[in-house]
Amino acid sequence: MSDATLSRSEFDRDTAIHPREPGVYDVSLSPGWAIGHALNGGYLLAVICRALGEALPHPDPFTVSAHYLTASTAGPAVIRTDTARVGRTLSTGSAGLFQTEEDGEEVERIRVIATYGDLDALPDDVRTSAKPPAFPPPEQCFSTKDQPGGEDAGPEMGKRLDLRLDPSTCGWAVGAPSGEGKMRAWFGLADGRDADPLSLLMAVDALPPTAFELGLSGWVPTVELTVHVRCRPAPGPLRVSITTRNLAGGYLEEDTEIWDSEDRLVTQARQLARALK
Amino acid sequence: MSDATLSRSEFDRDTAIHPREPGVYDVSLSPGWAIGHALNGGYLLAVICRALGEALPHPDPFTVSAHYLTASTAGPAVIRTDTARVGRTLSTGSAGLFQTEEDGEEVERIRVIATYGDLDALPDDVRTSAKPPAFPPPEQCFSTKDQPGGEDAGPEMGKRLDLRLDPSTCGWAVGAPSGEGKMRAWFGLADGRDADPLSLLMAVDALPPTAFELGLSGWVPTVELTVHVRCRPAPGPLRVSITTRNLAGGYLEEDTEIWDSEDRLVTQARQLARALK
Repeated sequence: MSDATLSRSEFDRDTAIHPREPGVYDVSLSPGWAIGHALNGGYLLAVICRALGEALPHPDPFTVSAHYLTASTAGPAVIRTDTARVGRTLSTGSAGLFQTEEDGEEVERIRVIATYGDLDALPDDVRTSAKPPAFPPPEQCFSTKDQPGGEDAGPEMGKRLDLRLDPSTCGWAVGAPSGEGKMRAWFGLADGRDADPLSLLMAVDALPPTAFELGLSGWVPTVELTVHVRCRPAPGPLRVSITTRNLAGGYLEEDTEIWDSEDRLVTQARQLARALK
Repeated sequence: MSDATLSRSEFDRDTAIHPREPGVYDVSLSPGWAIGHALNGGYLLAVICRALGEALPHPDPFTVSAHYLTASTAGPAVIRTDTARVGRTLSTGSAGLFQTEEDGEEVERIRVIATYGDLDALPDDVRTSAKPPAFPPPEQCFSTKDQPGGEDAGPEMGKRLDLRLDPSTCGWAVGAPSGEGKMRAWFGLADGRDADPLSLLMAVDALPPTAFELGLSGWVPTVELTVHVRCRPAPGPLRVSITTRNLAGGYLEEDTEIWDSEDRLVTQARQLARALK
């Protein structure tokens, strides 16, 4: 029904929203973004923020906070939005993603608050002191095609990404984690779709968990994820750099930066995740 | 009506909540936490999270995300909470803080989502690589009493804090900002009340803005603030360290760490703020 449904981009098709009534959107969550049994939290955040972008008058997510309640599954879901404030330069709303379980009960999956604005209306002034991460060019990094068994051996989501992991953060894959909470990769969509603010929301949660390099294995479920989109990304590959400094009490933070091909810091994000035994 | 109302602590009295009906709380916002014309965003977050702590079955805020909509004023306000999920180890809810304006219209000030748990139930394992900030002992730092005109010259909130600013991040106060986006201070409450998770929510937003050291002046309004409380703070003074790396497009992030007297990283927080001209 929308441009997104007809798009040649898998990401656009799989984040398509269908208005049911004002502020309420039906969606069909795609199994293509699964990691193990659960759908990726970044993909789900992009779907929710596509709906909020329809519900609010401003086009771009500036800051988005998501709390993850229960694991989402592929199939139908509904997003209910609620506008909190509409201002001249910013507007804010919240949203819940719901799915109906086999017993007929509607269960909330994720609750979000987001503030939207217009990235193209921002002044050009940049006084950042942040520096892009240094790591080898894509052709010297590991892609999912390099893993034993090829790309079909990995998570379903991996097939939709062009991910090139910095070899120095890949020790976990051969049973030799570095012990440092770092993960770095070149990032693109496998079908060549350029990055935009919505795909950045997915990209912040698309790399293997830093916990793997800290010697942990298994699922590291996100409790909360907040993303700041600071400028519209230029075409071309992104660099994603994640750092964990504080693994304590069974929880850890993942601090994520995304840099575009013009060396601009386009996104800063942080999540709190549980380190399950 | 509650212990808080009778407490000898100003912070406890000024964050007291009065249940109106299940999940709805009346509060009286105190002018004592004003900075200029506006009430401090950290103080307001503590009030809201005291209400959420009553509404949810778990006692401690683990991760709290607040989006600031309109400036709050001293006086009556109401907090409406909504429980999203109650689990075994975590529960999540949202809340809105509302005030009635002179024309009788109820206006939302802040919208929050928070996930609560029990800090005392966390395992003791700590594998952090984070290091406490290094700066001079309190007696070599600047207190509000050291400013020209004494403590009465500064913001109302300053009188309620025992804040000792690292001299190397105080250049702005004498017209010589360092140009680096850093702010560091020893932090306590002036009446000697020990820190707890609620006062940590206030402490993350209590220092002068890093923007001052970047040569900006004037108000730096918070758009969004997310706080992770990672463990219960030990008694004694806290160290608060704030870093800004990315001032661009009229916005900046403030990344805040709080360390307790036992050298534990008790809080990580980040806010997105507007750099007004």
